Amino acid sequence: MLSKKRINAVAYEFLEDKEGSKPVVKAMSEIAGSTVMLIAAEYLNSYNGMGVIMGGITGVPPTKVVILGSGTVAEYTARTAIGLGAEVKVFDHHLYRLRRLKEHLGMQIYTSVINNFFLKKELKEADVVVGSLRPEEATCLITEEMVAEMKPNAVIIDVSIDQGGCFETSSMTSHHNPVFKKFDVIHYCVPNIPSRVARTASTALSNIFTPILLKIADVGGVEEMIYAKKGFKNGVYCYKGCMTNLYLSKQFNISYKDIHLLLASNF
Amino acid sequence: MLSKKRINAVAYEFLEDKEGSKPVVKAMSEIAGSTVMLIAAEYLNSYNGMGVIMGGITGVPPTKVVILGSGTVAEYTARTAIGLGAEVKVFDHHLYRLRRLKEHLGMQIYTSVINNFFLKKELKEADVVVGSLRPEEATCLITEEMVAEMKPNAVIIDVSIDQGGCFETSSMTSHHNPVFKKFDVIHYCVPNIPSRVARTASTALSNIFTPILLKIADVGGVEEMIYAKKGFKNGVYCYKGCMTNLYLSKQFNISYKDIHLLLASNF
Amino acid sequence: MLSKKRINAVAYEFLEDKEGSKPVVKAMSEIAGSTVMLIAAEYLNSYNGMGVIMGGITGVPPTKVVILGSGTVAEYTARTAIGLGAEVKVFDHHLYRLRRLKEHLGMQIYTSVINNFFLKKELKEADVVVGSLRPEEATCLITEEMVAEMKPNAVIIDVSIDQGGCFETSSMTSHHNPVFKKFDVIHYCVPNIPSRVARTASTALSNIFTPILLKIADVGGVEEMIYAKKGFKNGVYCYKGCMTNLYLSKQFNISYKDIHLLLASNF
Amino acid sequence: MLSKKRINAVAYEFLEDKEGSKPVVKAMSEIAGSTVMLIAAEYLNSYNGMGVIMGGITGVPPTKVVILGSGTVAEYTARTAIGLGAEVKVFDHHLYRLRRLKEHLGMQIYTSVINNFFLKKELKEADVVVGSLRPEEATCLITEEMVAEMKPNAVIIDVSIDQGGCFETSSMTSHHNPVFKKFDVIHYCVPNIPSRVARTASTALSNIFTPILLKIADVGGVEEMIYAKKGFKNGVYCYKGCMTNLYLSKQFNISYKDIHLLLASNF
Amino acid sequence: MLSKKRINAVAYEFLEDKEGSKPVVKAMSEIAGSTVMLIAAEYLNSYNGMGVIMGGITGVPPTKVVILGSGTVAEYTARTAIGLGAEVKVFDHHLYRLRRLKEHLGMQIYTSVINNFFLKKELKEADVVVGSLRPEEATCLITEEMVAEMKPNAVIIDVSIDQGGCFETSSMTSHHNPVFKKFDVIHYCVPNIPSRVARTASTALSNIFTPILLKIADVGGVEEMIYAKKGFKNGVYCYKGCMTNLYLSKQFNISYKDIHLLLASNF
Amino acid sequence: MLSKKRINAVAYEFLEDKEGSKPVVKAMSEIAGSTVMLIAAEYLNSYNGMGVIMGGITGVPPTKVVILGSGTVAEYTARTAIGLGAEVKVFDHHLYRLRRLKEHLGMQIYTSVINNFFLKKELKEADVVVGSLRPEEATCLITEEMVAEMKPNAVIIDVSIDQGGCFETSSMTSHHNPVFKKFDVIHYCVPNIPSRVARTASTALSNIFTPILLKIADVGGVEEMIYAKKGFKNGVYCYKGCMTNLYLSKQFNISYKDIHLLLASNF
Repeated sequence: MLSKKRINAVAYEFLEDKEGSKPVVKAMSEIAGSTVMLIAAEYLNSYNGMGVIMGGITGVPPTKVVILGSGTVAEYTARTAIGLGAEVKVFDHHLYRLRRLKEHLGMQIYTSVINNFFLKKELKEADVVVGSLRPEEATCLITEEMVAEMKPNAVIIDVSIDQGGCFETSSMTSHHNPVFKKFDVIHYCVPNIPSRVARTASTALSNIFTPILLKIADVGGVEEMIYAKKGFKNGVYCYKGCMTNLYLSKQFNISYKDIHLLLASNF
Repeated sequence: MLSKKRINAVAYEFLEDKEGSKPVVKAMSEIAGSTVMLIAAEYLNSYNGMGVIMGGITGVPPTKVVILGSGTVAEYTARTAIGLGAEVKVFDHHLYRLRRLKEHLGMQIYTSVINNFFLKKELKEADVVVGSLRPEEATCLITEEMVAEMKPNAVIIDVSIDQGGCFETSSMTSHHNPVFKKFDVIHYCVPNIPSRVARTASTALSNIFTPILLKIADVGGVEEMIYAKKGFKNGVYCYKGCMTNLYLSKQFNISYKDIHLLLASNF
Repeated sequence: MLSKKRINAVAYEFLEDKEGSKPVVKAMSEIAGSTVMLIAAEYLNSYNGMGVIMGGITGVPPTKVVILGSGTVAEYTARTAIGLGAEVKVFDHHLYRLRRLKEHLGMQIYTSVINNFFLKKELKEADVVVGSLRPEEATCLITEEMVAEMKPNAVIIDVSIDQGGCFETSSMTSHHNPVFKKFDVIHYCVPNIPSRVARTASTALSNIFTPILLKIADVGGVEEMIYAKKGFKNGVYCYKGCMTNLYLSKQFNISYKDIHLLLASNF
Repeated sequence: MLSKKRINAVAYEFLEDKEGSKPVVKAMSEIAGSTVMLIAAEYLNSYNGMGVIMGGITGVPPTKVVILGSGTVAEYTARTAIGLGAEVKVFDHHLYRLRRLKEHLGMQIYTSVINNFFLKKELKEADVVVGSLRPEEATCLITEEMVAEMKPNAVIIDVSIDQGGCFETSSMTSHHNPVFKKFDVIHYCVPNIPSRVARTASTALSNIFTPILLKIADVGGVEEMIYAKKGFKNGVYCYKGCMTNLYLSKQFNISYKDIHLLLASNF
Repeated sequence: MLSKKRINAVAYEFLEDKEGSKPVVKAMSEIAGSTVMLIAAEYLNSYNGMGVIMGGITGVPPTKVVILGSGTVAEYTARTAIGLGAEVKVFDHHLYRLRRLKEHLGMQIYTSVINNFFLKKELKEADVVVGSLRPEEATCLITEEMVAEMKPNAVIIDVSIDQGGCFETSSMTSHHNPVFKKFDVIHYCVPNIPSRVARTASTALSNIFTPILLKIADVGGVEEMIYAKKGFKNGVYCYKGCMTNLYLSKQFNISYKDIHLLLASNF
Repeated sequence: MLSKKRINAVAYEFLEDKEGSKPVVKAMSEIAGSTVMLIAAEYLNSYNGMGVIMGGITGVPPTKVVILGSGTVAEYTARTAIGLGAEVKVFDHHLYRLRRLKEHLGMQIYTSVINNFFLKKELKEADVVVGSLRPEEATCLITEEMVAEMKPNAVIIDVSIDQGGCFETSSMTSHHNPVFKKFDVIHYCVPNIPSRVARTASTALSNIFTPILLKIADVGGVEEMIYAKKGFKNGVYCYKGCMTNLYLSKQFNISYKDIHLLLASNF
């Protein structure tokens, strides 16, 4: 369709800022991470599950939260969980990412390299497990057997579900029917968590898009913008009807063209 | 009924610990306070209300939380709200209570003596208002007009509802039907908030009751316990069928007897 | 001996300050608490035990420290342990003491009422257990079976050892031979921990005694001081050769006299 | 003049360190940022203005500080303002800069992308507004109308004044006559704030220059240093009498020569 | 005069709240303490003194602040000084007051019992010395010789000046002529510091007085209030023309009458 | 030997991660830094030295810790020292490193550029001095005269000893005989501090090596790994018997070959 109409299409999750990081992904990760513990709290309350609170009550041990991954989602999940008084343990494959997480949080926190011995032990005791590993590192990390040994009514939130998921047992759900139970463990696998807080999400997005739109007006049009701003060009996945994003071309089996060659051919 | 069966009845919310404070009230206040912001978050999400998150998202102003009162509920509400990244403002009649709150939180925080000028201004801008004033100080504090000027879909949580409430517009609701709207403002007025997290609440209660029951076994019975422990005696509201709690005797119009005279008459 | 020489003797650990608390006990508890984790670290290192560090290393789970009690020793132990990056869990019988501990530390921390279920579970996983309960609450709390299930080379430090100890397996040791092993668990049971840091301890004591000595000079002698200062009088255990401390009179089976009667008889 | 004498001149604000950032600019920004709130406090006191304190007083709402920009000046201004108990709101065009500010401060803080709706609202309520945007982003940001709506005796400090300023109403002042009033708002527009604390500023500068001078001695002279150290070369604006700084050449209309060509021509 | 007119006069600094502490004194101490470091900063800047900043500048040692006393003034001074990045050392006679200060600040801080060895050493190196000891403990604490050995242009702020002062060299000054130099040390000895921030001070006072005035209206007059509220009665120093404050009666040599006897004689 | 057997040898301290930093060096530095203050505490106790505690005791000035350097060792040393209540001062040659240290610690701290005036002064008063400068910046920094003026029984820990050391007076010691005294100052100069906590160190190492070994299995052998991973290749110091590390070839006087040429010659 796009191809026929020879449209220029921009995937906003591929846009890049001056530092080369993806602002939309980052903003949505901040929101998802900050929302995750509120979702967990909802499924831990008496009407949905265990009937426990995150923590902070004198004389009552806090709930245990295991976070898989240490990127932006993990960082904001950890910060919220700590703010709610939970006991937080973060696992990741990479030391340098765990170190960066600690620096961003500005406090000492349990971090562990992903290793079956510690991970299995902590999963058995966890009340909440949040999966936020990158797709290439997530696949099948938590096996069916591991989930089967978790506590009844524990809550799994698989933030990576749109990219394959961190749990063998997870499969995509929707905001209308967000959870299912497997091995008596609650699975929340809604792919677009930020839409739970739609106004905040759209403010965050307009924070990013407004300056881009103003810039487009400034330089004289979308076409000009593609030439002018490398970060914007990287977001274009369909240029004059040609698929210019390798990942999508494979996904949908459409032939791929390099955008630089297309741009060069304009001269 | 109790009277006929000549029962000794203990109201656990009147029990006192060694320091003279009421441990059950305190524990339930900790839980209620820690739960309040999770409730607020639920009614701020896209399915129930504004679609905003508490805070912490870079570049998006945080939600505004106004807390009325500065006791245990307020302290735990404030701590959770700050942990979630909200902007918190606490109002109370008493300076020494606000000062104590600041010491307990261990940080600088906006505090204000209740004063119509500042209060009205902040209510107009608030996303969440939590009422946790003591009954004698709460009555009618927030008038209908003040509520009418609040933002559409703002959330009021009236924790003091079982003792009259802080808002002229609030009236008791239940866990099955917890909210109603007035002036387009969401009112949550469920009296027993801790039952939302029933297991945590019962752990907290058994933390208090187990030592008392062991002590009763130790001293040789309830009767002996009443003599032995002043804090326990203060919890007795019905002694051998006689109403010994002044507040309840007035409430239900039953004649009141002083427990000390009754105890003395045993000799 | 004291009795024959008709001496006035003051036990400095019974002295009281204006607030009615015992300054010497408090100062020594601060020092003991701050030292305990350094001792633990010594017995966790490769030459004495497990070869592990308290915590803070990225990707390596921290050591687990269980603290029994929530008074001054516990507070300073917890603060140091957290400062060293350990995972800290505090158990006590009393909610109000746990609450006070949290206020003094100014942060969220795992607290639990002493309850066999949680306590046994945590002891099995602990690397360090510190006992600092009051004598009347400590006796036999941790049984032989509980210690037998602890990890090999775990470290027990029984700060309450001079008043009976918190562990069935502990028995007093000395600075020259400070530890023994039972059930493969290292027991450190030296009663006078502050003498490990003798200069700090003596500065702390002279902070307390110098003003008292100056005051004695001021009022005109020890005799006058006993009349003038209630806190000082409470420290006197031998007045003109008469035993005036009830606890010691029982301990050593010496007849006890009330100091107020003795003082009154001077007129 | 420099040209005639064929002098090599170094502008220390263009020097670069190993990381490519400008150490002199950074150090002066730290000092300016730390000083700004003290200046504001001076103009808020009873002899100069509103007679209010920054904050921290129990029961008295804190003053409101709006910071424009999120670089080093903004970071140090925010840290000081928070330390003084003020309510701080930071606005910037760039999300990644706001994110970095939050990481450096190590705490949650109100951040907003610059957007007329929020900005106007906050300016109306602000007691202090600090402008520290980069010159290319600052120009005319705060218009006359916006200033006209600010509170009487509010304080504007325009740290960017030497590069054009953030406020339409601001114009350069001096340490001898540092403020003027426009629309009843106090404007402080002294370009060289660090000279208020001259000794600290000169220590900070000698921290940077001493190692450079030692290095020059080491390599055998200024000429050699220019070859040896890229960071030093970048600071040279006049090489053997030729203007080698593009910015200055435009400013003063002097013909510009590329320093690399000049250096190459030496061979 | 008051006596002739048979006036009832209330000294607001003697009013007491429910907790028995003096709210006016406390509020004014919070303000004085929060202001002290701003005053110090003013006298440390290049136009008045050393030309140094409080602290926080990377690579530049912070200024040294010595605080004498550990009450409310000291607490707020310390908090502000730490917020500004200074190096803070607190001295007091009483351990329990220093301990309370640490709890209120919620952080580790240098505290020392007042002892000539440490005190002299720190005074020699101090940039700022704040005196806030209680009058009975302050007198002549810092002798002329000690001040003589301080750094040139160091700043002394004697908050206790209205009750005798902590420094032998200090003598009262006014807001119009606030400082003098002795031994080249700047002395700031203005007795009523809070009037520097008059609006904040009057908000703080009206926070206290408004509820009292409302209460007076409520109970039916000042006379009735004296009977009803012990805390209010304690503030009365002149009852129907009779001096009822012992301290003032001695100060001005007016015969003193016990207010309780006067009240009783009304019946 | 390696040469004869034509072995491929990897020096794990030269391995690099994706970010180009050396993970083994970083992990060992974290451990060394976290251990340093525990070692210092051991040599400050009554049996080895001064008999003082790090800090935190109310009314007793804390011990003074001077840290030379501001890399990972310094960061973890500072964090531990602050956690133990000591007074910490950090010196380094580079402002940007000190700035980074402050950001990582997330708090204000005394930092100073290395400068004889301040450094000498602080060394005289220090109880503990930790040397962790990079070899090229460390040599002879602290001269014999400076050490001679230090306090008796002060503790020097020279973490840089394996690369030359920061102190003229230091010379390598071993875990069996870790300290010596010079000028009455205790010198601890054991090169491999992490082996004090061997299990933690080996967990940290296996965190790094396990993924590498798994990767080697994945790509099909060591040879393939050298081609595939630049970070791994940089760790190879002996390729098929040829010395490929410049530093070691100089050290042991073995002829050096560039690994890239060797790899290329395989084709």
